[in-house]
Amino acid sequence: MTIRFGVIGTGAIGREHIKRIQNKLSGGEIVAVTDVNQASAKDVVERFELDAAVYPDDKALISAENVDAVLVTSWGPAHEASVLAAIEAGKYVFVEKPLATTGEGCMRIVEAEMKHGKRLVQVGFMRRYDSGYVQLKEAIDNNFIGEPLMIRCAHRNPEVGENYTTDMAIHDTLIHEIDVLHWLVNDDYKTVQVTYPKKSKHALEHLKDPQIVTLETNGGIVITAEIFVNCKYGYDIQCEVIGDEGIVSLPEFQSISFRKNATFGTNVLNDWKDRFIDAYDKELQDFMDSIKKTGEPNGPTSWDGYIAAVTADAAIKAQDSGEKEVVSLVEKPDFYNQYQTI
Amino acid sequence: MTIRFGVIGTGAIGREHIKRIQNKLSGGEIVAVTDVNQASAKDVVERFELDAAVYPDDKALISAENVDAVLVTSWGPAHEASVLAAIEAGKYVFVEKPLATTGEGCMRIVEAEMKHGKRLVQVGFMRRYDSGYVQLKEAIDNNFIGEPLMIRCAHRNPEVGENYTTDMAIHDTLIHEIDVLHWLVNDDYKTVQVTYPKKSKHALEHLKDPQIVTLETNGGIVITAEIFVNCKYGYDIQCEVIGDEGIVSLPEFQSISFRKNATFGTNVLNDWKDRFIDAYDKELQDFMDSIKKTGEPNGPTSWDGYIAAVTADAAIKAQDSGEKEVVSLVEKPDFYNQYQTI
Amino acid sequence: MTIRFGVIGTGAIGREHIKRIQNKLSGGEIVAVTDVNQASAKDVVERFELDAAVYPDDKALISAENVDAVLVTSWGPAHEASVLAAIEAGKYVFVEKPLATTGEGCMRIVEAEMKHGKRLVQVGFMRRYDSGYVQLKEAIDNNFIGEPLMIRCAHRNPEVGENYTTDMAIHDTLIHEIDVLHWLVNDDYKTVQVTYPKKSKHALEHLKDPQIVTLETNGGIVITAEIFVNCKYGYDIQCEVIGDEGIVSLPEFQSISFRKNATFGTNVLNDWKDRFIDAYDKELQDFMDSIKKTGEPNGPTSWDGYIAAVTADAAIKAQDSGEKEVVSLVEKPDFYNQYQTI
Amino acid sequence: MTIRFGVIGTGAIGREHIKRIQNKLSGGEIVAVTDVNQASAKDVVERFELDAAVYPDDKALISAENVDAVLVTSWGPAHEASVLAAIEAGKYVFVEKPLATTGEGCMRIVEAEMKHGKRLVQVGFMRRYDSGYVQLKEAIDNNFIGEPLMIRCAHRNPEVGENYTTDMAIHDTLIHEIDVLHWLVNDDYKTVQVTYPKKSKHALEHLKDPQIVTLETNGGIVITAEIFVNCKYGYDIQCEVIGDEGIVSLPEFQSISFRKNATFGTNVLNDWKDRFIDAYDKELQDFMDSIKKTGEPNGPTSWDGYIAAVTADAAIKAQDSGEKEVVSLVEKPDFYNQYQTI
Repeated sequence: MTIRFGVIGTGAIGREHIKRIQNKLSGGEIVAVTDVNQASAKDVVERFELDAAVYPDDKALISAENVDAVLVTSWGPAHEASVLAAIEAGKYVFVEKPLATTGEGCMRIVEAEMKHGKRLVQVGFMRRYDSGYVQLKEAIDNNFIGEPLMIRCAHRNPEVGENYTTDMAIHDTLIHEIDVLHWLVNDDYKTVQVTYPKKSKHALEHLKDPQIVTLETNGGIVITAEIFVNCKYGYDIQCEVIGDEGIVSLPEFQSISFRKNATFGTNVLNDWKDRFIDAYDKELQDFMDSIKKTGEPNGPTSWDGYIAAVTADAAIKAQDSGEKEVVSLVEKPDFYNQYQTI
Repeated sequence: MTIRFGVIGTGAIGREHIKRIQNKLSGGEIVAVTDVNQASAKDVVERFELDAAVYPDDKALISAENVDAVLVTSWGPAHEASVLAAIEAGKYVFVEKPLATTGEGCMRIVEAEMKHGKRLVQVGFMRRYDSGYVQLKEAIDNNFIGEPLMIRCAHRNPEVGENYTTDMAIHDTLIHEIDVLHWLVNDDYKTVQVTYPKKSKHALEHLKDPQIVTLETNGGIVITAEIFVNCKYGYDIQCEVIGDEGIVSLPEFQSISFRKNATFGTNVLNDWKDRFIDAYDKELQDFMDSIKKTGEPNGPTSWDGYIAAVTADAAIKAQDSGEKEVVSLVEKPDFYNQYQTI
Repeated sequence: MTIRFGVIGTGAIGREHIKRIQNKLSGGEIVAVTDVNQASAKDVVERFELDAAVYPDDKALISAENVDAVLVTSWGPAHEASVLAAIEAGKYVFVEKPLATTGEGCMRIVEAEMKHGKRLVQVGFMRRYDSGYVQLKEAIDNNFIGEPLMIRCAHRNPEVGENYTTDMAIHDTLIHEIDVLHWLVNDDYKTVQVTYPKKSKHALEHLKDPQIVTLETNGGIVITAEIFVNCKYGYDIQCEVIGDEGIVSLPEFQSISFRKNATFGTNVLNDWKDRFIDAYDKELQDFMDSIKKTGEPNGPTSWDGYIAAVTADAAIKAQDSGEKEVVSLVEKPDFYNQYQTI
Repeated sequence: MTIRFGVIGTGAIGREHIKRIQNKLSGGEIVAVTDVNQASAKDVVERFELDAAVYPDDKALISAENVDAVLVTSWGPAHEASVLAAIEAGKYVFVEKPLATTGEGCMRIVEAEMKHGKRLVQVGFMRRYDSGYVQLKEAIDNNFIGEPLMIRCAHRNPEVGENYTTDMAIHDTLIHEIDVLHWLVNDDYKTVQVTYPKKSKHALEHLKDPQIVTLETNGGIVITAEIFVNCKYGYDIQCEVIGDEGIVSLPEFQSISFRKNATFGTNVLNDWKDRFIDAYDKELQDFMDSIKKTGEPNGPTSWDGYIAAVTADAAIKAQDSGEKEVVSLVEKPDFYNQYQTI
């Protein structure tokens, strides 16, 4: 059995996923594409020699008989409508973050999915598939460090362009920590606060950089997350979980070590795209494998997308207020408790 | 285009590769299987739900119309005949080590392939696809450490069973270093010597363990390779290349770090099968991709299989003599110089 | 020239310093001792075979002709009076922390010293003499990381006794970070806030542990300091300074590495007394050397003692209020600007 | 009680030790100096403001009433006569390596010392006082790694001057490994062999560099020691002891870590003088402390000096012959078995 994908949005990330499914992963094929820019959709078919139809819009693509699963890699504000339409049609959906741009939008998807009666949607939070995070999760679940009390993490980019704004530190950068951390410790966020240290001279005038985001969970875990997108030295993701019996930390990105010029060192990545490349492969392979095996996807759920949206909204509010803001999640529906997500 | 594989030998490693091609990699399928134990071949078809014919022997499988490439994962002494038959039939071959059990056998394959006129054969030396070795190779090729002068490496297993004999330290263990090191430094072996340090109390009576193998290349590089297959603490592969401008070393296997019980540490693998799992995937994916793209495989060649066999034979002789033994390779045919193998 | 010391307070730390001066360092000798417990003072003379007079109290000891320098290692609340008396007598003083138990008390010492006209007092903040902190200071001063923007540090003990109370996390534990961090970045504290994460199950009922202290400097540097005195795994001091051009971190305590039982690790200390043992030696040797060379001590000043006291008071207030509290330092007198302390 | 030193040889290393005793260590003073260059001896007295007499030669200095211990830091070939004279006079001796330039010369000292009836001599092999080696020794003695089977070590200098010749790789460089390794594993050398890898382009024409020295002990331990004195990248000492239960390794020289310019690294020393600076202090302090406490020094003995000389001679022979050469030690006298040297 092959999962036949229809792709909505043939920009950069859409193309990466198309190449992945066609050339690297097992059990999927691209049978349909669409894009608001139809020329882009046609170009993709030609360039990657796809045996795929080009559709005028997401609705037409979703309703195509031979489309088993929809890959939503369009512009963020368009995600919600495509996902709702796919659920309506009973099609599987792999949607890149954000699931929807608002908590309300996410909740509409959650409700539609519950009404449908089984899981259809997986959100593209790939870090849960990274071997480092997987090892952290196993250690915590096996009680290796006892009860988690604190988390220290950092998300650093060497630099960002002029279009990167202060709120994107939440929506585009911290969003990955927001998803992966509550999953790691199996807890929910209660409050969030943002502090601005001295600004880096490499940050453009309109941008506050670095930022420190402090999240507190219902269970009392305090998370200190540094976002620093002009750190110059490289792309670097750090995460340390401090428990009452010990500490575990994410490994450095794997590099040969060297001794040269009075330095004993390893290489730090410059390009974020290289950091989670295996995780991108694994999330999509798992999406396909899990559907084949159980009839439902196994990765981050619509509910996880909702958590991310509500938490990000509170963090944005905290950026402006300087105060500790409440993360107001509704109670988790029983429907999502049945899924032990990866 | 899909590469249709016929598999000769459905034991443990054969099954691993079958699962890989069916479930994890892109662009291949299993259409034929055979095994001296026909029940095993039939079991594989059933168990993995293959759409594949069971053949009575390798010759029949090789001559099947729909077989594009042959995967040789049978018992070592049977490899040569299957590979020669595949070349005769003009089929691609991915053969697990050893290419053949003797230097002469390898040379027969080399000559058959040259006579055929293009590359058909790839030998399963997977380490060249390991990201650590790939980084070492890049660093050396980019002259990051200047001229390589020495290599220190270690190949350690936690323990071995009763059937592991002293010569297997060469044929089954060192064989991977033999292949990957000459490729790393682009040089050929000249001599080999074996020294036996004090024996570990954990080594069984019939086994000499550890062993130190010293290889010298034509260019004067001295390689000190420790083989220690009852090291107790874990499966550990180390490689350090010392050049006149600096040193590069293989990374440790990637693990989260921890602080617990007065230790700051990382985990060492126990099972060798976990160490190069990505490399196994990559070598087979590359075999398929390269054939599709260029009409020839791209990985370790028959000539590399020949080098490994001749070097291993000299090392076995050195185990017995205690002397420095010559590695007598014939001159490399121009045919193989045209291939810049991975 | 030998510096002749009078020691006020012959408890544990007094004895450590006496042994150091007598047996390990160059250029000092103990000629006088006193203690509120006269038996302890006599015992010290006998046990360490000192050629030293026992005085009934600090005043008598300070006024002894042959005392060049006073070592104040008595109970904290007694420090201020002894230091003031020594300044009055024009004697050098090496005083263990705290300089005085209140900011006002420290200010009285500052004013007495200024009135005297030259430096006499060094406070026992030994971390500035630790080779790791010295390297951090050099790197920062040499602009290796550009402008410091953030500091992340941790002060962890394996466990504490029943007499350790929540405020001691500031006065006895964080106090070392308070001193060393403003020196590292050459900046002053502006505000301090304390957050309590989920409590460790190993902390006794009366103790809040861990604590996170956030300090902000006048220059905008945000310092996140974790205090965790029941971390179980060992005594561990961490400090990472994040600048706009790079990051520097304190080394782990130096230990051999090992590979055993599926772990690649180093040893973490259990006993805090081993961590800064070289720094204790160096601070006292430097005290003596600097006096001999320049007529004044070179280490942490009375002003540094004042900063520590005022900052600690604000932190204690923050422990209770949960709010961001202001660190209200008076303007630094020119007198102390002339000293480039180590 | 103060140990009163007479110093024979006021060149670079003599001056370092004089400064150490005068300014840094406890319990010693310099009361006499001599040098074949009398102007140098006088200069030292003046420059370091010593209260010391200048003697015309070693004999006169040794016989001075107020000299308790002799520090021999003259030219190597002069050591033997000074040490013998000191023993004759019943004076303690701290002698820099070599104890004597030949095995026979060392044996004359051994015999003189035995005849005297108690230990007087300590040889300046400082590595035994280095905290890293001390930790290795403890781990081995505590059976942490079981029985040692192999040792891998490296001694690397960034570069050497024109006067550095191939044999100095043994006498001046490897000599430290020769001493410290037999002490570490409590075993004696049986054979030694030297291999020359490809020469570094940075080595001058007359010099073979790098060299690999293989030592085998009576107990069967195989030691692979790399000497590379033009390694360019820094001064680097490595030592890994591989046992049947685990492995222990010397720590890297302690440095802050940094993240900058796409590198995560630590600093490697350039200057060998910084590497063992603490060990130099400790060996001399221990020499004084042990004499005061037990009447005899505690560090490396004349017998250790003899082992070093005989082993170095065999290694020099092996440099020329290319063969495995025997290290011919006479049986260890009971006299030296009574000393458990540090």
